[in-house]
Amino acid sequence: MARINDNYPKLPVSYLFSEIARRVEAYKQSTPNADIIRLGIGDVTRPLVPSVVKALHDAVDEQAVAATFRGYGPEQGYDFLRNIVIENDFIPRGIKLEADEIFIGDGAKSDIGNFGDILSVNSTVALTDPVYPVYVDTNVMAGRGGDSVDGRWSSIEYLPCTAKNNFVPELPTSSAEIIYLCYPNNPTGTTLTRERLKTWVDYARSSEALILFDAAYEAFITEDDIPHSIYEIEGAKEVAVEFRSFSKTAGFTGLRCGYTVVPKSLQCKTLSGEKVSLNRLWNRRQTTKFNGTAYVVQRAAEAVYSPQGRKEVRDNIAYYLQNAEIIRSGLQRLGLNVYGGISAPYIWLQTPDGISSWNFFDRLLTECNVVGTPGVGFGPSGEGFLRLSAFGDQERVREAMQRIENWKI
Amino acid sequence: MARINDNYPKLPVSYLFSEIARRVEAYKQSTPNADIIRLGIGDVTRPLVPSVVKALHDAVDEQAVAATFRGYGPEQGYDFLRNIVIENDFIPRGIKLEADEIFIGDGAKSDIGNFGDILSVNSTVALTDPVYPVYVDTNVMAGRGGDSVDGRWSSIEYLPCTAKNNFVPELPTSSAEIIYLCYPNNPTGTTLTRERLKTWVDYARSSEALILFDAAYEAFITEDDIPHSIYEIEGAKEVAVEFRSFSKTAGFTGLRCGYTVVPKSLQCKTLSGEKVSLNRLWNRRQTTKFNGTAYVVQRAAEAVYSPQGRKEVRDNIAYYLQNAEIIRSGLQRLGLNVYGGISAPYIWLQTPDGISSWNFFDRLLTECNVVGTPGVGFGPSGEGFLRLSAFGDQERVREAMQRIENWKI
Repeated sequence: MARINDNYPKLPVSYLFSEIARRVEAYKQSTPNADIIRLGIGDVTRPLVPSVVKALHDAVDEQAVAATFRGYGPEQGYDFLRNIVIENDFIPRGIKLEADEIFIGDGAKSDIGNFGDILSVNSTVALTDPVYPVYVDTNVMAGRGGDSVDGRWSSIEYLPCTAKNNFVPELPTSSAEIIYLCYPNNPTGTTLTRERLKTWVDYARSSEALILFDAAYEAFITEDDIPHSIYEIEGAKEVAVEFRSFSKTAGFTGLRCGYTVVPKSLQCKTLSGEKVSLNRLWNRRQTTKFNGTAYVVQRAAEAVYSPQGRKEVRDNIAYYLQNAEIIRSGLQRLGLNVYGGISAPYIWLQTPDGISSWNFFDRLLTECNVVGTPGVGFGPSGEGFLRLSAFGDQERVREAMQRIENWKI
Repeated sequence: MARINDNYPKLPVSYLFSEIARRVEAYKQSTPNADIIRLGIGDVTRPLVPSVVKALHDAVDEQAVAATFRGYGPEQGYDFLRNIVIENDFIPRGIKLEADEIFIGDGAKSDIGNFGDILSVNSTVALTDPVYPVYVDTNVMAGRGGDSVDGRWSSIEYLPCTAKNNFVPELPTSSAEIIYLCYPNNPTGTTLTRERLKTWVDYARSSEALILFDAAYEAFITEDDIPHSIYEIEGAKEVAVEFRSFSKTAGFTGLRCGYTVVPKSLQCKTLSGEKVSLNRLWNRRQTTKFNGTAYVVQRAAEAVYSPQGRKEVRDNIAYYLQNAEIIRSGLQRLGLNVYGGISAPYIWLQTPDGISSWNFFDRLLTECNVVGTPGVGFGPSGEGFLRLSAFGDQERVREAMQRIENWKI
């Protein structure tokens, strides 16, 4: 009988958001009239902006006529999108990239999840804690997790991000070969300054580690000294891959588009010590296991960079950041400890009186009818925290805060 | 320094179709006025049908308004599509499936390539020869290939499909745990009768092998005794995964949608011999490393099943099959040995006088300005053959055949 990948059964069956959905559903069953406000999952609620909608319609019309129909595109993405990405996201920040260093994909989740394909299953991993569960689970699937002991995987180094260190992780103490960083951070909503990110790049250069840098929330940065790309730091092209997404920037969560930057100067080694370009390996992976992102979606992404598209998208980001400010300041007025929410769409709330994440989640759900995400779901250092997302409708966000302010916690 | 997956460097850098593109480009440079007709790569040329175009426009309009906007969808696909797939592709053939046995993806190439994620890297593989290169390369990447010796991978069992066995492969002689079958076949354009497919299902049941059945060309079947789905064969749900695609059926090569059927009764085993449901593992894989196919694309796929959509799509298939007939009968009139092209969009041409695949490719390119695909590019048993694709414009197909008929080979 065919054998399975024996790393899979090690993983818990239930994904964090499935468990949340289950509890919300159970509460709705018991209290059918409850008016539930969801500030849990990080999904956008504003519709696609007019420039993107127009680009989609135009591209659909192209696909309707033989003369302009396009079938298979380049697996790495069309040059029109790769070039406009470079011109807008990198050149203005002094970063030079070539088109073949940009790989257009169907979203950061896929690319981050699949990137491990080209790395050794024996490579060691370090990641911040709390963390986006996809980094952990995909490494466990590949066999880089070891065993699960008290909510931690034995072969992964966890770098705690807590109130004590102001959510700035310490450098790894193991000789981790692969380091995951996500800034602005999901779930804590905190950031790394240029100076602090530089210590990571310098560390990776000296220890020859690979940084997988998730910049999905880059568009939310409002502060000056926060780098938008890891390549703003000198030498990063030799140590870092960067993942970008149109999901949160332009509301593409249902449209699916992102991109991954793999500089040609980035190398890793074979078992025999020979250096190999990761760009070449990722290109081989994508051309073999992927057939490109829909043409119409790539045209939609291109429209995000038009002058009108940029303005429309900025307005949406401003709207979500206003939500973040409403949540942040409201919670602060209640005397609660809150973090993030300034250059990120997430607010990281310390539960009062040391209540556990899940207890606080349950009380917030049943007493205020507001859904958050239990911090412990993102890792052991998330215990005692709750993530609130700023992607809701503004009136509903105000209503949620009203309820929380009137609440006897 | 981070280490790479050491299986990657084993693969040749160049993919078959890149080498073809290189040779065509070189010829165009030397002969700029050549009027080249491409019957090589299997990409469609007819535009999206009106029903699909309308569904796309409608879905884009939904995404433009907050009240109907949809962000993240279910990673496994929307129920509206999963259900209509079952009602149209399976119920009429007597096959019962539940919605959670259908996984909507962004195309068969991704799903076939990624499916190995959930299987042991130590599982043994058998595949037909010639074959779609993705089956081979993705297994080599996972470490199931062994070493490359004279164009064959040492750990893979090749099942030759040649004129001698009328392109019907013999059952494996190794105890292969994973068997890839693609029918109607790419590249040979040949089919398996119901009776013959039954011997494969029976074999898989008795030897407890897993069949990965690629049915991407199902829509081209014109003959009565050719099964459209492997699940038409009794017991197949216990041994087979089926991959389907809208690429060739409805011209979605640039839109990206397909689906994978993983029956809940299909089991494989862990190292310790415990039986595990593959459906559960694939669900875990997709929810962790994939975020669903674009909503607008799923609406487009749904429209393929509307009465008008079905008619429009059938007309396109008929057009391509007419091309296949023009190519097949033209080559036969020249006294050449041709196979396939009756229930498939590919014609498999035996080169005259035992000329090698690449020599024949070069002569066809430079003397007729027609591009085919060298059979040997699909595996060692493809040597001495050339694949011609029926996806071109009909006038151009006729012109290509005219040139070949006037050719002094």
